[in-house]
Parts: sequence; C-alpha cells; structure tokens
Amino acid sequence: MAEGALTPEVILDTAEEVLRRFGPAKATVVDVARALGVSHGSVYRHFPTKVALREAVTRRWLDRGRAELAELAAGDAPASRRLRDWLNALFEAKRRKAAEDPELFATFSVLVDKRSGVAAAHVSQLEEELTRIISDGVASGEFAPRDPRTTARAVFDATSRFHNPSHAADWVSPDIRAAFDAVVSLVVSGLRSSE
Amino acid sequence: MAEGALTPEVILDTAEEVLRRFGPAKATVVDVARALGVSHGSVYRHFPTKVALREAVTRRWLDRGRAELAELAAGDAPASRRLRDWLNALFEAKRRKAAEDPELFATFSVLVDKRSGVAAAHVSQLEEELTRIISDGVASGEFAPRDPRTTARAVFDATSRFHNPSHAADWVSPDIRAAFDAVVSLVVSGLRSSE
Repeated sequence: MAEGALTPEVILDTAEEVLRRFGPAKATVVDVARALGVSHGSVYRHFPTKVALREAVTRRWLDRGRAELAELAAGDAPASRRLRDWLNALFEAKRRKAAEDPELFATFSVLVDKRSGVAAAHVSQLEEELTRIISDGVASGEFAPRDPRTTARAVFDATSRFHNPSHAADWVSPDIRAAFDAVVSLVVSGLRSSE
Repeated sequence: MAEGALTPEVILDTAEEVLRRFGPAKATVVDVARALGVSHGSVYRHFPTKVALREAVTRRWLDRGRAELAELAAGDAPASRRLRDWLNALFEAKRRKAAEDPELFATFSVLVDKRSGVAAAHVSQLEEELTRIISDGVASGEFAPRDPRTTARAVFDATSRFHNPSHAADWVSPDIRAAFDAVVSLVVSGLRSSE
C-alpha cells in the first residue's frame, strides 16, 4: 500500500479484522502491517503503541450502535419507559457483541480489566444518558427527588450483571432474561419511591 | 504422619495452607501430601481428585463467617434494617477475604468461573437468607407484595458488584462505599413500593 493511502481509518479497519482473526492474545502490530503491506513503522507513525491501536479500534467498535442508545435517552416517552428501553437496548447490544463478535468483545474486556481510559469514557457516556433520563423523570415527578448523577451511577451499578463484560458467560443462560426483568422492575420501583 | 491420623480435617487444614502458600495456579495434591509426610495416594483416598480437594477446602473457607450472616437474616429487627445489615456484612466479609486471604479468594473465584457446585451452593444459601428477610418484610407490610424468592434473586443480582468475585478489583476504590450505599438505598426503596 502506498504511504499516502495509509489513513488512520484504513489501519483501524485492518486492525479490527486482525483482532477478529487472531484474538487479543495473539494479534500484533506486525500482523496489522503485514495485512496492509506496509512496514510496522508506518503503522506506529499513526498509533504510537499496540495499546493505543487497540484502544482506537475498541473505541470505534463501542461507538457503533451508540446512536440507538443516545436516541432512546433523548426521546420523549415517560422516563420509566425510556429507562427500561435504554437498559434493554444496552443489554441486547452487549449480548450481541459478546455472542457475535467474541474476539473484539475479549479485546474490550481486557481494556476494562486494565482500567483503560476507553472503557472509562464508554461508561461515562452511558452514565450521562442515564443521568438525563433520571433527571427528566425527577423533573416530571415520575421519579422521587434524588440527585440524578448519583442515582444514575446506582442504576448502572445495580444492572452490572447485564452489561459488565465480566458477567458475559451468564448471558447465554436461559434464566437471564427473567433475571434482567426482575432487576429492572426493582430499580424502576426504587426510582419511583423515596425511602 | 501415621495413616490413622490422616483425617479429612487434617488434610483440609494442610491443603488450605498449601493453597495459601503456592496459590491455586501452582498448588498440587503432591504438595499437600509432601506437607503431610504421606503419599499422594493417601490424600486421594479421602479426596478423589484435585478439584474435589479444592472444593472441600473452599466450602469450609466460605462457611467460616456464615454464622454472622445467618444470625442477621434470622434476627427480629425490621426487614429493611436486616436487609441493609445483611448486605453490608456480606460485602464486608467478601472484601476482607479478598484483601486478607487473596490466594483462597482466587481459588474461590476460579470455582465461580467454572460454575462449580460449591459456588452454586454458596449462592443458594445466601439467597435462602435473603428470601427469609424479604418474606418477613412482605408479611409485615414493610415491603410491597412480591414473590420473595424471585425478589431475593433480583436483590442478589442488583448487588453483584459488591459480592461477585469478578468485581473484587473495584473493592479497594475510595468510592466503593458510597456506590454500595446508593445501590442498597435504591433496592430498599424498590422493595417498599410496588411499581
């Protein structure tokens, strides 16, 4: 490949495919360079380290499908409806990614374990959206008055089993749907009432 | 050691120390036999496999401190008070075990990942206690009417971040206490109100 054609996007497309083929334990920057037909130095010119390259791939991978969540959060349905739909869409997106794209999901899980900034930014975007829904619910009187940001964090934590990658092995269980519904109902009840 | 003195308890004591010294990745039945001064065949006579021995060690290790939880569940304080105290005692016990006894905690975590019967039995005992507290709360009218068993499962799931070993790395975070309190408050509110 000619140097001029080697854009960050082209590198990310290839790095994503290499991760999908070899998995995060084996994929290297040399594999990416080889697949592109360039030297590894050319890749390092755009992404200074293997970790930086993986983070950029994962950021883009996480961003796909984010539009649906953002739209749900910004909708005008009642807050409890929006919250249920949003949590459901998050769970479904995570399940789908874990089942259909296991190597990229594993790459993401490693970044979560290493407390990468990419994972932190992802969580903080999600918490922003939750904060918005809860804030709307408090404003309309649908939810009891509580600090929306702290409460968003509590809702995110209380639903960890259904979005944190460390629980992915449970997501194929036949009971997981019922377990999700029971937790979401409990959380929505909790938001409606002040203690 | 004379064969007659080789009781299961003596083997478990030694196996626990061996796990603590070498960690679950390295400890073997031969290490346990060597520490006892017996042949590994003598150990296998009591515990047919390495996994069976580890499960027995972990079962006993998990059982220590269970009395406190059982007592809290069976107490006569109001259900919401008992629930808070019980969840708090569970979280503190798990944190303490993770911090002070990391090799045994790692042994337990591996069994959880492998869906060992020991981990399942541990969870089901805990859910029994939660069911009892919730059942009492529903009977006294403190909690809204809900199926106690399904609800116990939901409460256990909603607090996963504070007892599931896959989250142990977060338990040293300075914010974890506030996060725990926020989730427990949300859960208790949820139990008080029907949606």
